Amino acid sequence: MVEPWAVRETWLDTDPVRLAQAESVFALANGHIGWRANLDEGEPHGMPGSYLNGVHEDRPLPWAEPAYGYPESGETMINVTNGKIIRLLVDDEPFGIRYGTLRSHERVLDFRAGTLDRRAEWRSPAGSTVRVTSRRLVSFTQRAIAAIRYEVEPLDRPARIVVQSELAANEQLPALDGDPRFPELAEAPLRHELDEARDGSAILIHRTRTSRFRVAAAMDHLWDCPAGVRHQAESHHDLARLTLSTLLRPGQRLSVVKLVGYGWSGVRSRPAVQDQVEGALAAALRTGWEGLLAEQREYLDEFWGRADVEISGDEEVQQAVRFALFHVLQAGARAEGQAIPAKGLTGPGHDGHAFWDTEMFVLPVLTHTVPDAAAAALRWRHATLGRAQDRARELRLDGAAFPWRTISGRECSGYWPTGTAAFHVNAGVADAVINYTDSTGDAGFDAGPGLDLLVNTARLWRSLGHYDSGGAFRIDGVTGPDEYSALADNNVYTNLMAQRNLRAAAAAVRRHAERAAAGLGAGEPDARSWLAAAEAMVVPFDEKLGVHPQAEGFTGHQEWDFAAMTGDDYPLLLHYPYFDLYRRQVIKQADLVLAMQRCPEAFTPEQKARNFAYYEQRTVRDSSLSACTQAVIAAEAGHLDLAYDYLAETALIDLDDLRVDTRTGLHVAALAGSWFAVVQGLGGMRRIGGVLGFAPRLAGPLTRLAFSVTERGRVLRVEIGPGQATYQLTRDGEPLGIRHYGQPVTVTASGQQARPIPPAPVLPRPSQPPGREPARRRAGSG
Amino acid sequence: MVEPWAVRETWLDTDPVRLAQAESVFALANGHIGWRANLDEGEPHGMPGSYLNGVHEDRPLPWAEPAYGYPESGETMINVTNGKIIRLLVDDEPFGIRYGTLRSHERVLDFRAGTLDRRAEWRSPAGSTVRVTSRRLVSFTQRAIAAIRYEVEPLDRPARIVVQSELAANEQLPALDGDPRFPELAEAPLRHELDEARDGSAILIHRTRTSRFRVAAAMDHLWDCPAGVRHQAESHHDLARLTLSTLLRPGQRLSVVKLVGYGWSGVRSRPAVQDQVEGALAAALRTGWEGLLAEQREYLDEFWGRADVEISGDEEVQQAVRFALFHVLQAGARAEGQAIPAKGLTGPGHDGHAFWDTEMFVLPVLTHTVPDAAAAALRWRHATLGRAQDRARELRLDGAAFPWRTISGRECSGYWPTGTAAFHVNAGVADAVINYTDSTGDAGFDAGPGLDLLVNTARLWRSLGHYDSGGAFRIDGVTGPDEYSALADNNVYTNLMAQRNLRAAAAAVRRHAERAAAGLGAGEPDARSWLAAAEAMVVPFDEKLGVHPQAEGFTGHQEWDFAAMTGDDYPLLLHYPYFDLYRRQVIKQADLVLAMQRCPEAFTPEQKARNFAYYEQRTVRDSSLSACTQAVIAAEAGHLDLAYDYLAETALIDLDDLRVDTRTGLHVAALAGSWFAVVQGLGGMRRIGGVLGFAPRLAGPLTRLAFSVTERGRVLRVEIGPGQATYQLTRDGEPLGIRHYGQPVTVTASGQQARPIPPAPVLPRPSQPPGREPARRRAGSG
Repeated sequence: MVEPWAVRETWLDTDPVRLAQAESVFALANGHIGWRANLDEGEPHGMPGSYLNGVHEDRPLPWAEPAYGYPESGETMINVTNGKIIRLLVDDEPFGIRYGTLRSHERVLDFRAGTLDRRAEWRSPAGSTVRVTSRRLVSFTQRAIAAIRYEVEPLDRPARIVVQSELAANEQLPALDGDPRFPELAEAPLRHELDEARDGSAILIHRTRTSRFRVAAAMDHLWDCPAGVRHQAESHHDLARLTLSTLLRPGQRLSVVKLVGYGWSGVRSRPAVQDQVEGALAAALRTGWEGLLAEQREYLDEFWGRADVEISGDEEVQQAVRFALFHVLQAGARAEGQAIPAKGLTGPGHDGHAFWDTEMFVLPVLTHTVPDAAAAALRWRHATLGRAQDRARELRLDGAAFPWRTISGRECSGYWPTGTAAFHVNAGVADAVINYTDSTGDAGFDAGPGLDLLVNTARLWRSLGHYDSGGAFRIDGVTGPDEYSALADNNVYTNLMAQRNLRAAAAAVRRHAERAAAGLGAGEPDARSWLAAAEAMVVPFDEKLGVHPQAEGFTGHQEWDFAAMTGDDYPLLLHYPYFDLYRRQVIKQADLVLAMQRCPEAFTPEQKARNFAYYEQRTVRDSSLSACTQAVIAAEAGHLDLAYDYLAETALIDLDDLRVDTRTGLHVAALAGSWFAVVQGLGGMRRIGGVLGFAPRLAGPLTRLAFSVTERGRVLRVEIGPGQATYQLTRDGEPLGIRHYGQPVTVTASGQQARPIPPAPVLPRPSQPPGREPARRRAGSG
Repeated sequence: MVEPWAVRETWLDTDPVRLAQAESVFALANGHIGWRANLDEGEPHGMPGSYLNGVHEDRPLPWAEPAYGYPESGETMINVTNGKIIRLLVDDEPFGIRYGTLRSHERVLDFRAGTLDRRAEWRSPAGSTVRVTSRRLVSFTQRAIAAIRYEVEPLDRPARIVVQSELAANEQLPALDGDPRFPELAEAPLRHELDEARDGSAILIHRTRTSRFRVAAAMDHLWDCPAGVRHQAESHHDLARLTLSTLLRPGQRLSVVKLVGYGWSGVRSRPAVQDQVEGALAAALRTGWEGLLAEQREYLDEFWGRADVEISGDEEVQQAVRFALFHVLQAGARAEGQAIPAKGLTGPGHDGHAFWDTEMFVLPVLTHTVPDAAAAALRWRHATLGRAQDRARELRLDGAAFPWRTISGRECSGYWPTGTAAFHVNAGVADAVINYTDSTGDAGFDAGPGLDLLVNTARLWRSLGHYDSGGAFRIDGVTGPDEYSALADNNVYTNLMAQRNLRAAAAAVRRHAERAAAGLGAGEPDARSWLAAAEAMVVPFDEKLGVHPQAEGFTGHQEWDFAAMTGDDYPLLLHYPYFDLYRRQVIKQADLVLAMQRCPEAFTPEQKARNFAYYEQRTVRDSSLSACTQAVIAAEAGHLDLAYDYLAETALIDLDDLRVDTRTGLHVAALAGSWFAVVQGLGGMRRIGGVLGFAPRLAGPLTRLAFSVTERGRVLRVEIGPGQATYQLTRDGEPLGIRHYGQPVTVTASGQQARPIPPAPVLPRPSQPPGREPARRRAGSG
């Protein structure tokens, strides 16, 4: 069932993989707290998950052959105290789908309400039928708060009802396939520090063993029942529980509101953390359940007003794109001082680490929809600058070397050729700074964290590259985005992004000469040095083939024998050794094509078309971070149907579990990529010379496409029809100058600016490796 | 004290590092059994060590991020039952250098006798002085046998003497600095299976825990004493002991001969292994102590007759080169079916693994001195062919992929960029086959194991390389000998060695068409395919600089800032991350220079001179496998003093502990390299067009240099004086055609062929990185 503003599940599939996938898809989060969609009664589960952004445990990284600069320990996001559990006994039998008969079960994730609803009817083994209704939220407005309203009513005869609302620490976790985490870490990461219960409330405080985080979870309850309710609260080391018991007749309903407050700190005392959590609960109690719901909807109305994408002609993609935006928001809305992990707070995949995904895929979306959240994420990076400077020193480089994967800012990569050597992560940070500053004009950020980040990353590039005897500036032995190549010289993406970084840093130092000199010891000689390196940057080109090699020598490498592959051979990294992948022309994910998206001015249209066709034939999309980029360049090159197919692929990645790993968490960056596919792909949005331009076109089955982007405090709405596009500011604000197919347009709030769309070229569809073509999208298909 | 045929230590340095160094230097081995020079009484020790070639334990290899094709477990040579221990009590006090007063202590390793002698005088705390004399051997003629004669006599007053001769299993081992081995493995690798003692003999049989090797050690004794001796034998799980007690007057002596037999098997039963060891002991008893000594000397007389290098003008280098040859013999003489580990059987370094060292450095020496031992080592490789074929299949390649490091033939490398990717190990195997066959004309080997090895390695290269669009055959993404570069395209050394391999395989298939077809399914189409690939092989050349880049792109890489280094910065790999080393022009060990040694015909003399000067400036010799190669090419390029300095460095590597790691075992390949430095360097020996040629010259302080090489069953003696060289066969045999400075010479046994030596060119000395120059060698220096 495809609904434009919700995802609905009408039956519970208890296969563990599909159950876990649904737990990810229906997860609720606000960037601070994450609750997987585990059932109220806790079981069965695919993977229990309650997360607090930043709370992790350290774990030693084992090395068969240790070497200089390898991190000694890594970090793993842990499952914190579970505040979701509400168990139910009907007469003397536990409600649960393993007993009795489940007559109906439905869950709905509502993108506008920001809630997860559940409705089930169940007949106990003894023959009593009850209806259970629950609604959950993780509050966007009160970031320490999650809440549940849980209701139960007998349908056919009176029933004794017992409801047990719990806080449970150190839940037993099932093993993930191939998960190398140490058992002791997964099994009991929390050590008891305090437990208290009184009246309708309780609190548990624990500490993590090695990382020494203090984690507090508290709950309070409000209940309503026509019959008398007996209640009892109790607490133990790893469990707190409120038990409510009553006797209900059909038509009578016990309604319980459970408010859960979370807090943590690596430094504050136990009383301070306890006060913080109980204070948050007090505020939420005052707001009340209906108040929390109203705030949630108001927050989301504001979000959708700035961020909605309307798609006419493909209901499934319409739903999927909104689902994607909703989860991007959930991942980043209130992270405030913490990273945005690759999986958001929806599952334990990738150990809860943040990668370059954040700056390169998530932040461009937030910058144009929730700019404050983008700023907060960049401030998190900035807060880790000291660690990145330490890492650069350790690596014998200048400036800052941000980690390939991390929670706290420390490098946690266990494989340096596609970890430490993927220095492009630093250009990604700079790129997000540039984009954010360009789009918002946030002067305080520009002069502060922005300047720090640009200068430190520029210093890194200047020390990482060198001039060859011919005066060209080379960056050798690094790894670009494509993880099926490594340690190559002059990766085009890396060099172009470094060039952009160096230039932006020089400009920033000139804009803020005083602060740069005083705070960073950076001045005009640095700016000149960076500009000179940028100017001399090597960008290899294969004259014979007329394409850019992804890195020097790439186009001379052996071709992959795609014809010999079967579907079982993918992802290739599970079936082929790295050396074989690295030495051939097989591409895991867009690399040169990403360069064409992010540095559009470095390529002529002819080069873009030839490059795209060349790399399209060699890209297998074994990474989730590929289709969205291919969508953008396919659209630019005029391959609109292909662009649309890639849009669908990236938008449906988790709803359709296309990579069969959604159970470990959502692909937040790929979901964010669906915004790219729409806005940069079909919308053709680029910033050229500081001005936003569009080159919109419909594709596939679409009859209409509309989206909004926030720019310099204004909200620009773009609506694309078959023959024309219209532009308008949807809120008050000064007129905004943009471009439509290169022609200037001044957009105001007072009326629509309509412009014709030139007809699309008719081009042969580029080919992909056999068997790796994206699914062809037709209207109503799927 | 510098003696030509022995190394003498005249005092015991109990510093643990120097003690352990001496244990390596004075170690005895025959390629099957290895005994470090631990003191008779067992303590103090640097590192106790008794090894049986091939006996290892498996250990899991831990991976921070596992990937396809990584080995799941590795192998570690273990310390087996110690049969060296003979403890002594004088009156009621244990003889030992920690108590009482050591008045003198001397040890002598005699290269002609093949024995380690010890002589000590010690005064007990109670005032009794005794003289202890021991002599040890590990028999070259009876490979399962080691033996000790131990004598004690009071010097000043009568003394009660108790001698305890032991077999001790599961000795406690001190930790090696930074040794990542698991404690349980180092501490108690052996599980008891049998212990027996009777009369003067005892036996212990154990099994290793995981690898399931059965290890037996047995001892028997003969003693002689003018006074009555009481004896008692006993055995326990990890200890067997014969106790002899007597009362000696000054002038009386207790003399004990201890015979130790070792055996092991991965398949045979306990009774079979027990019988084998006790049978070996019975044979040794029959031979007797004097017989063993005589056999040992006879074996070594034969060896030195074929292998000796005489150096006049530098006593220290004379001694060092003989020391080197003696240890090369000890490492390989009787390995018979097992590998020749990098450290021989002298210590636990490198986990007891064999590397490319065997074929590329040790076997050329054995081929020209003890050809049977070279054949045995190649037969070991051949015995692991099935595992190498399995590995190739796992790596998605054809033919065989021999391991980078191993004991049993399985890949044990914990770092693939300089492990699996160092495919040149396979060309090294082929090279050793070619050299052995060329030198010996061993037809049976050529048609059997030789053919198998050549065909399987050629198949590997054919599948690893590919033709580019211009028809050139490229080998991309591999690692050459220099471990400060990795995963480069068209490494010159690798490509030239692969070319040699492909051509030799084609020739072998044509020589043995029938067997190649029947046994290997290889025929003329394969031969043509290999020859075509060899013909089209890419050998990059930098026209601008006029030098060969070590690999494609190398000469464009950033220079290392040698001026900023101090001695503490070396070896660089301990202070710089791999990525930084890999992307720069800094070289750990000869790579392109090794190509010039092993493939001399691929370079013009001018290229050799320019290349040598270029790489000399960038090579830091952080590997022990560099100086010997630099010596050879320095000599060829006319830099004779430099060649001599490198000869001294490689020959003295362990006697002077130049790398401060001799305590973990000797650098057998570097020691073998001293033979290269003499024979290929100063002797200028090369095989060109199937014929051995020489271009001899004296260097440094030398007044005369003589060496012998075995060729086609004949022993060619080359003697080099200041102005002329003479050639003669020292044993009967058909005349042998060689070349002297390119001119044919026919050498016979009947008289010397004298030829003049052209004057050496006067050239400026090439420079090395500052601080990494070899020590300048002057006559009598050191």
